[in-house]
Amino acid sequence: MNIVLIGCGMIGGSMVIDLRHSDTITQVTGIDINEDHLKKSLELNIIDRYSEIDDAVPDAGLVILATPVDVSVEIICHILDCTGEKTVVMDVGSTKGMICAAVVNHRHRQKFVASHPIAGTEDSGPESAFAGLFKNKIALLCESKHSSEYALNRVHDVYSALGSTLIEMGAGEHDRHLAYVSHLSHISAFTLGLTVLDIEKNEQNINLLAGSGFDSTVRLAMSSPNMWGPIFSQNKQDIKTALDEYIRHLTVFRDMIVNDKKEELAVQMLRANDIRRILK
Amino acid sequence: MNIVLIGCGMIGGSMVIDLRHSDTITQVTGIDINEDHLKKSLELNIIDRYSEIDDAVPDAGLVILATPVDVSVEIICHILDCTGEKTVVMDVGSTKGMICAAVVNHRHRQKFVASHPIAGTEDSGPESAFAGLFKNKIALLCESKHSSEYALNRVHDVYSALGSTLIEMGAGEHDRHLAYVSHLSHISAFTLGLTVLDIEKNEQNINLLAGSGFDSTVRLAMSSPNMWGPIFSQNKQDIKTALDEYIRHLTVFRDMIVNDKKEELAVQMLRANDIRRILK
Repeated sequence: MNIVLIGCGMIGGSMVIDLRHSDTITQVTGIDINEDHLKKSLELNIIDRYSEIDDAVPDAGLVILATPVDVSVEIICHILDCTGEKTVVMDVGSTKGMICAAVVNHRHRQKFVASHPIAGTEDSGPESAFAGLFKNKIALLCESKHSSEYALNRVHDVYSALGSTLIEMGAGEHDRHLAYVSHLSHISAFTLGLTVLDIEKNEQNINLLAGSGFDSTVRLAMSSPNMWGPIFSQNKQDIKTALDEYIRHLTVFRDMIVNDKKEELAVQMLRANDIRRILK
Repeated sequence: MNIVLIGCGMIGGSMVIDLRHSDTITQVTGIDINEDHLKKSLELNIIDRYSEIDDAVPDAGLVILATPVDVSVEIICHILDCTGEKTVVMDVGSTKGMICAAVVNHRHRQKFVASHPIAGTEDSGPESAFAGLFKNKIALLCESKHSSEYALNRVHDVYSALGSTLIEMGAGEHDRHLAYVSHLSHISAFTLGLTVLDIEKNEQNINLLAGSGFDSTVRLAMSSPNMWGPIFSQNKQDIKTALDEYIRHLTVFRDMIVNDKKEELAVQMLRANDIRRILK
């Protein structure tokens, strides 16, 4: 089977690295507007060659669409236009509402499977791709009732090869939940980074005084703006709700500190401690 | 040398575990209002016996004060009252302004060294203590011009045995910097935890959908309210300044998302990315 990887970054690259162990893969063709990413992906043996959508997609058994989500929405219909009889197209983006809406009336809608593997790091680009990224992770499938059984079987095989467990979810439900458990974390980290950079003009203090706690809390501030800007934009309503709630909690917390509401503060911290039970 | 550990938790316990490798230590006496912590510390061989301040401190060569910072401020003068001729007292708390102010006029001020090792985890209690916690970490000394050379030498030896590098800093400066690079991170995590717990009534969603990014950002929400409440309270002015600035950044970020200010958003995210260069 020929694979076409559109968007040769960390997520797509990591997928291909693991899929290459599968017997059925004959060739991986990379497509990217960033020529450096293509060259690097060739060097790293992530892809075997590079090409263009119109040339590569018709002969593909599987197209993995792993571009920033604004690009995915822009090009998904053209990709579906170019598919051959046996081509299945899956995306791996962090928002699902807009891409599902973009393809809803496409004549090849059934060839498309909307998916989102819950995995990644703060790094980006093909040089950050690594084996095993998706092992024992969850991947979400959205609106799969519009995908053919043939397409779904292929995508099931992909995630099975990666070691991920699939869960079905509506696109709107997906975007609402992810606003809270992922997009909000990224924004809290980006703004924590900005706050500390602004105040600690003496950068050396950040480096010297930051413990592992700060490192961990701010880590996502290192994430790619090219990837995250479009996610925030596509999911702005749910993110606004999450951010309003977060800002409200911060304001209440601040006021409890300032006004010496020690018991109320302890109650809230104990309540937050519950995250340990849920995550572990 | 006899060590008295007041506050048998994770920080004090980890210190003693490493100091036990030193030839000069003869006995470690634990003091804690929590009897379970004393029993556990005995079981784990962190302490050899337990006692009370009035009985144990006069014969101590070194008192490590590792209680929550409100307790430290409350008892530091009594501890100094009880010191013998050769006793040195060091605290290890995360705020330095109030404890330095509490001892400023004490007749044994010179026996006290205010310190803060920049190390810890979200766990607490003696069972969370472990060897090597302070290795290759920074520890801050505050207002050490008021400590005797004898006391300072002893505390230098302690941190040298732990593998930490000492840096001198004013108490006010310490609290201002730590508000940004530590206390703010804890509040951002506590409130992120509260926000997600409030909205995701279905706890299973948090567990299923949370990637490593959320885990990392929310980790500090698991921290002990007994330890952190008093830190927030003692450093409330600097924390208010930090939180006001954080809330301002979050509000601006939210408005940029909602109003499609994509370029401005990208500029801010790129600026936040700079935290990578500074931390690595």
